[in-house]
Amino acid sequence: MLTLDKIYDAARVLKNNIRKTDLIYAPTINEKSQVYLKAENLQITGSFKVRGAYYKISQLSEEKKSKGIIACSAGNHAQGVALSAQKHGIKSAIFIPSTAPISKIEATRKYGAEIMLVDGVYDDAYNEAVKYQEETQGEFIHPFDDIDVIAGQGTIALELIEQLNDMEAVIVPIGGGGLISGVAYTIKMLNPKCKVYGVQAAGASSMYNSYNNHERLELSKVATFADGTAVKMPGVKTFELCEKYVDEIVTVSEDEIASAILTLIEKQKLIAEGAGALSVAAAMFNKVPIEGKKTVCLVSGGNIDVNILSRVINRGLMKDGRLSDITVELLDKPGQLREVSTIIASHGANVVRVRHNQGGKGMEINECYLNVTLETKNEEHLEQIKKTFIEKGYKLLPTF
Amino acid sequence: MLTLDKIYDAARVLKNNIRKTDLIYAPTINEKSQVYLKAENLQITGSFKVRGAYYKISQLSEEKKSKGIIACSAGNHAQGVALSAQKHGIKSAIFIPSTAPISKIEATRKYGAEIMLVDGVYDDAYNEAVKYQEETQGEFIHPFDDIDVIAGQGTIALELIEQLNDMEAVIVPIGGGGLISGVAYTIKMLNPKCKVYGVQAAGASSMYNSYNNHERLELSKVATFADGTAVKMPGVKTFELCEKYVDEIVTVSEDEIASAILTLIEKQKLIAEGAGALSVAAAMFNKVPIEGKKTVCLVSGGNIDVNILSRVINRGLMKDGRLSDITVELLDKPGQLREVSTIIASHGANVVRVRHNQGGKGMEINECYLNVTLETKNEEHLEQIKKTFIEKGYKLLPTF
Repeated sequence: MLTLDKIYDAARVLKNNIRKTDLIYAPTINEKSQVYLKAENLQITGSFKVRGAYYKISQLSEEKKSKGIIACSAGNHAQGVALSAQKHGIKSAIFIPSTAPISKIEATRKYGAEIMLVDGVYDDAYNEAVKYQEETQGEFIHPFDDIDVIAGQGTIALELIEQLNDMEAVIVPIGGGGLISGVAYTIKMLNPKCKVYGVQAAGASSMYNSYNNHERLELSKVATFADGTAVKMPGVKTFELCEKYVDEIVTVSEDEIASAILTLIEKQKLIAEGAGALSVAAAMFNKVPIEGKKTVCLVSGGNIDVNILSRVINRGLMKDGRLSDITVELLDKPGQLREVSTIIASHGANVVRVRHNQGGKGMEINECYLNVTLETKNEEHLEQIKKTFIEKGYKLLPTF
Repeated sequence: MLTLDKIYDAARVLKNNIRKTDLIYAPTINEKSQVYLKAENLQITGSFKVRGAYYKISQLSEEKKSKGIIACSAGNHAQGVALSAQKHGIKSAIFIPSTAPISKIEATRKYGAEIMLVDGVYDDAYNEAVKYQEETQGEFIHPFDDIDVIAGQGTIALELIEQLNDMEAVIVPIGGGGLISGVAYTIKMLNPKCKVYGVQAAGASSMYNSYNNHERLELSKVATFADGTAVKMPGVKTFELCEKYVDEIVTVSEDEIASAILTLIEKQKLIAEGAGALSVAAAMFNKVPIEGKKTVCLVSGGNIDVNILSRVINRGLMKDGRLSDITVELLDKPGQLREVSTIIASHGANVVRVRHNQGGKGMEINECYLNVTLETKNEEHLEQIKKTFIEKGYKLLPTF
């Protein structure tokens, strides 16, 4: 059973083995409230997961420990378990689907885990892990539905209470629900007036659905680049704790998540992964009633594959109207490119890329298109530029 | 004159007006030493510059303050001055060359400064600022060659001594030299055994040249994407302080800076700008003798334009051999694309992009090229893949 004693015990065990992460004031996230970021992306291993994993392992008997630790994950849980096992001086075997990004596999390997690459997706890796557990009798560490794991994550709330004792709301990302279960329980026990809000990606909203329907529901599929929260069904224990202690659960879109990641980069100089940025997206896009409140956004992790980071940045810039594509139909005659450039420059926009398409199947012989990628200030700025083109007699095409 | 009293006074003045930034253990930066990061990228305004600017303004007479503050900068100094003036409740006019990125102009405007956009480059903006100063008799805040500014930057060293009192080396980025002057002076006064190393981009190495030639030398041009350090000539005061208190100055290449930025993103979840990553580049690429030492890398700022961030990420990935282009000559017959894919997959590399070039001027009719962008583990991994292609009889072309 989850108790405050257990949370305090976890804090004692974790004290010299993890970082007490900084709480960073971030006034630009939401201008109507005072937002602080709990930077668990700066935690060792790049996410909060090491808290639960380390505490869970510390509670095992010596006999259990000697048989080794097993986990199945392609992400933060894998790294948290691997490092925790290494710090305890015991073996770990981590089952990872072969489709996982190279960077995450390598990071887990560096923490000393034995990597078990399994062809296929998560479920295939999970099945292999279960078989292996039966053979070796090692301890399988569940990523969220385990009271010791939940207690470990709950230690974040103890730090928050110390760092900002008059906080009025905490926004927490939800995947399987381990993080919010520990945090919500601890906060409601110690500071019941503080609201606790959960956030999920709309494409992986299993806890949102379950919470609002008052029963554990399984999604047939999950689709979000917040891959750390791509869980089809909440845990039994985490669902119960959410029902009891969480005030409200909301969802955010993929574009909102990308925009939050971009804001964290530009305004806070912090890298968050999709899951880690959920809380910030909820605060930025007013999904939760935090007006006038001292609010903590829990930034749960920063392990985003850099190969997708630039795509996320571009998506965020597009959403904010700061990177825009326009396509102009030109008459194929001299001077037009210059005039287009002049219009753009007169509005103070920067040209990032130009593509010129002269002729092609299905086009008239003198038709010619110019596709320009622009750096603009915002949507309104872009609209002004478009308006000028139309006023000057140009035809704008839908962007392809 | 710079004195310890002045540094302590600056610390007192700054105490409730800036952040005491976190010192973050970063063991992966250099495996032979213990590296810590002083995260001034997490400072308000995204860089240390606000320390010097705020303290400088605090030392002005009420009469001076009433005439307003003037600065010329497209970057961190602009934001530091603008916010400091706003916090003091006085006017500021910031002269910015029109070529500056929109994001930096907007950030400065948000801190309440009057923005004076000047057509041209830095020198043009500077000339306008000087004229304006003569007209208004406002106070021109020098970005580095000013004792109060230097004292403000020196407060970082007081924090370091408190945060890691047994540090043995500090690595500090250098542009005009204000930051390192304050830091080196303070450290050598209080903990003279601690080494202080300076780093410049090889393309903007004015202090490096001057220090090694024992006289202030001017560069005819500067070229680096560490734009926060693109200074042609050191200050008079900063040069003197560097000569006296800095142990060694080294340079790093643009690729090394990009690689450091990438490492900070992936391993530390922190965004640094080019200038901010100089110290980390020096530690990563063993430019300074820190083996076995507790070393602080001062990460001076994080204001990097996101439109260039993805380019930096790609450059860093390329340098580390983790993103690679190979071009294979194919016979234009069925099944070749499949065989190429099979070879790549058998090595566990991921295909990110494929471009197929079939025919063209100067090519034989049956010549055909396949350019594949790959996600690889490292240089060695890439070489293995290339070797397999050659063994199977493929011709590899120089990458274009």
